[in-house]
Amino acid sequence: MRSWVLAAVCTALASTAWAYDGLVDKEVFELGPYTTVNGETIAEVRVGWEAYGELNAARDNAILITHFFSGTSHAAGRYAEDGARGYWDELICAGCPLDTERYYVLSSDTLVNLNVGDPNVVTTGPASIDPATGEPYGMDFPVVTIADFVNVQRALVESLGIERLHAVMGASMGALQALEWASAHPEMVERVVPVIGAGEADAFLIGWLDAWAAPIRLDPNWRDGDYYGGEPPTDGLAQALELVTLHANHWEWADATFGRAWAVEGEDPAAAMAHRFAVEDALDRVARERAAVADANHFLYLAKANQLFRAGHGATLADGLAAIEAPTLMIHTPEDLIFAPELVRATATLIGADGTPAHVLELQGRRGHLDGVLEIGQVADELRAFLAE
Amino acid sequence: MRSWVLAAVCTALASTAWAYDGLVDKEVFELGPYTTVNGETIAEVRVGWEAYGELNAARDNAILITHFFSGTSHAAGRYAEDGARGYWDELICAGCPLDTERYYVLSSDTLVNLNVGDPNVVTTGPASIDPATGEPYGMDFPVVTIADFVNVQRALVESLGIERLHAVMGASMGALQALEWASAHPEMVERVVPVIGAGEADAFLIGWLDAWAAPIRLDPNWRDGDYYGGEPPTDGLAQALELVTLHANHWEWADATFGRAWAVEGEDPAAAMAHRFAVEDALDRVARERAAVADANHFLYLAKANQLFRAGHGATLADGLAAIEAPTLMIHTPEDLIFAPELVRATATLIGADGTPAHVLELQGRRGHLDGVLEIGQVADELRAFLAE
Repeated sequence: MRSWVLAAVCTALASTAWAYDGLVDKEVFELGPYTTVNGETIAEVRVGWEAYGELNAARDNAILITHFFSGTSHAAGRYAEDGARGYWDELICAGCPLDTERYYVLSSDTLVNLNVGDPNVVTTGPASIDPATGEPYGMDFPVVTIADFVNVQRALVESLGIERLHAVMGASMGALQALEWASAHPEMVERVVPVIGAGEADAFLIGWLDAWAAPIRLDPNWRDGDYYGGEPPTDGLAQALELVTLHANHWEWADATFGRAWAVEGEDPAAAMAHRFAVEDALDRVARERAAVADANHFLYLAKANQLFRAGHGATLADGLAAIEAPTLMIHTPEDLIFAPELVRATATLIGADGTPAHVLELQGRRGHLDGVLEIGQVADELRAFLAE
Repeated sequence: MRSWVLAAVCTALASTAWAYDGLVDKEVFELGPYTTVNGETIAEVRVGWEAYGELNAARDNAILITHFFSGTSHAAGRYAEDGARGYWDELICAGCPLDTERYYVLSSDTLVNLNVGDPNVVTTGPASIDPATGEPYGMDFPVVTIADFVNVQRALVESLGIERLHAVMGASMGALQALEWASAHPEMVERVVPVIGAGEADAFLIGWLDAWAAPIRLDPNWRDGDYYGGEPPTDGLAQALELVTLHANHWEWADATFGRAWAVEGEDPAAAMAHRFAVEDALDRVARERAAVADANHFLYLAKANQLFRAGHGATLADGLAAIEAPTLMIHTPEDLIFAPELVRATATLIGADGTPAHVLELQGRRGHLDGVLEIGQVADELRAFLAE
């Protein structure tokens, strides 16, 4: 548990020293009907969003933050009710690389956001009521893609009178959205910062995303997605989230944090099938906490959206990345088990093939993929300079 | 599918050129009652075994092959009935590195072997009949460890009048058995060749093994392990096996084999939640084929045995590895996602700390962990020399 404690201490230090101080209000963007890239219409789309800093008169200082698979729009600051800090608090504040004295930083919940039960999340997905039936959509909700996430964000941004974004930045699934923004709407994106993400879901990731989702379908409470009003498939959802946690981490973290300690003193794992190691117990506990506010069908739709991702959603990856005109700063870690370092570098190479500036920065750490969220402070100076260029 | 076809072609070439030619008979070793390291007694232990080559008069030319998690004792040759080739056919034959003109190579099914439904596998585990009740043990079967696997193998070896093994060699879980042999019975092991394995299960692997097993427990047919005579938890078992396949592979293989091809022509994965990519379909198909002959409870017991592994099963890893006196040749791949390269090298360092010769060889390939089984031919010369020293 040591590194978790340490992370909490660091967050506390950061918050007193230089984190964004403001209270954050959750706003709701009501888009109304939205037709997906695939041609299906969702009658009423609503997503939550929040912002830090002030939009200037020219409306040209906006930076959009796009969130990761299990994330929300809460990138910085804290809510009045619960005081929970944003996940990139060290990055977004007055004087931070994403300086709220200078930039208007905004962040929105995606379509099919995972955390339906979080009171600060507003999203539209299988758990939403279909106005046509008065019942939750369940698996009748249309397939949505990262391009749909971006289209909804674009409508939000345009509703604020913003015609060009100073930058789009996001980690993991947020990197996919950032790349999609830059590929599909190059006229609106001045800079792009994809963190721990690549230009498409490769075959291995497609297979892994299916494996992440599988425990949900195995849970008898899932009932082909028709569990609203009954017992939800919480065991399957927790197991799906446990797979995400493992895959997004690294052996060095597990070894340093848990070693081969037992879950319960006196209960040697060798003595009974039910006795566990500390690492199993901790993973299970965290997964159940996360499952308590998450929705299983939303998980399935998120997995699908990620599998389907290719920047620009065209015939080839090269074309999709060639469409990117914005200077690009890719940030990743060589220890990433979800997006292979070779595929991140290949993405930068394809973006840069036609002369678009595309640079790659490496983070160090022992959390694997998660270091893209937790260790972003390592490249604060480079990020500040990139945004100021 | 290209690399699978290629693998089949290579196997065919190898078999005509230099594979072990002999038909292999499955033998059964009846140990009778066996008391586990943990102090529980299994009334009747039986395991299958097979051998290639001839035991010499001095009985000092025996090499023991220990099998991997989803493997069996069928390391080489072919059965008269089905012609299926052993998994290390290219390694074990007349003129091969494990030269059957020179060595007596033997291999046994472990306790709780996964493939209970394979007619050529003989094992004892939860699916076996408990003589005390006349019913399968189910989850009443005692916890067994890699040390128990080795103790049963030792009884088999001694029953053949063999007092010392020329070498013990195995891949993955087979490497753990090889290390346990050398640590617990140094007087019986002259050389040890652990392939794609390390000195203990680290915390990350312990967590992953739990995640591998979880789909079984989610399957309503599992019924706390009491499914014999009813419908077995085949869906959960297949999903568990799919996780093993993914984890034992690597993105380069998936990318080259499947790319982003669709499972079914005309069924765009973007068009419906049920439409899949080729990689998902292939992983599912392979997993279901494997699940058809495997047993879910045996999977759970295997996962436990692997989690519990530390060479020598003592208080520290350093002591367990210091007990190894046999010259050691560790073979692994830097792309391994199951046993981290750093932990393989650390194992060799600890074995060598007291002067025991311990060398590490690296394989190249794009199958990750599986290259330890599939690409072992790359180090044929080094292996031949090591065994002849």
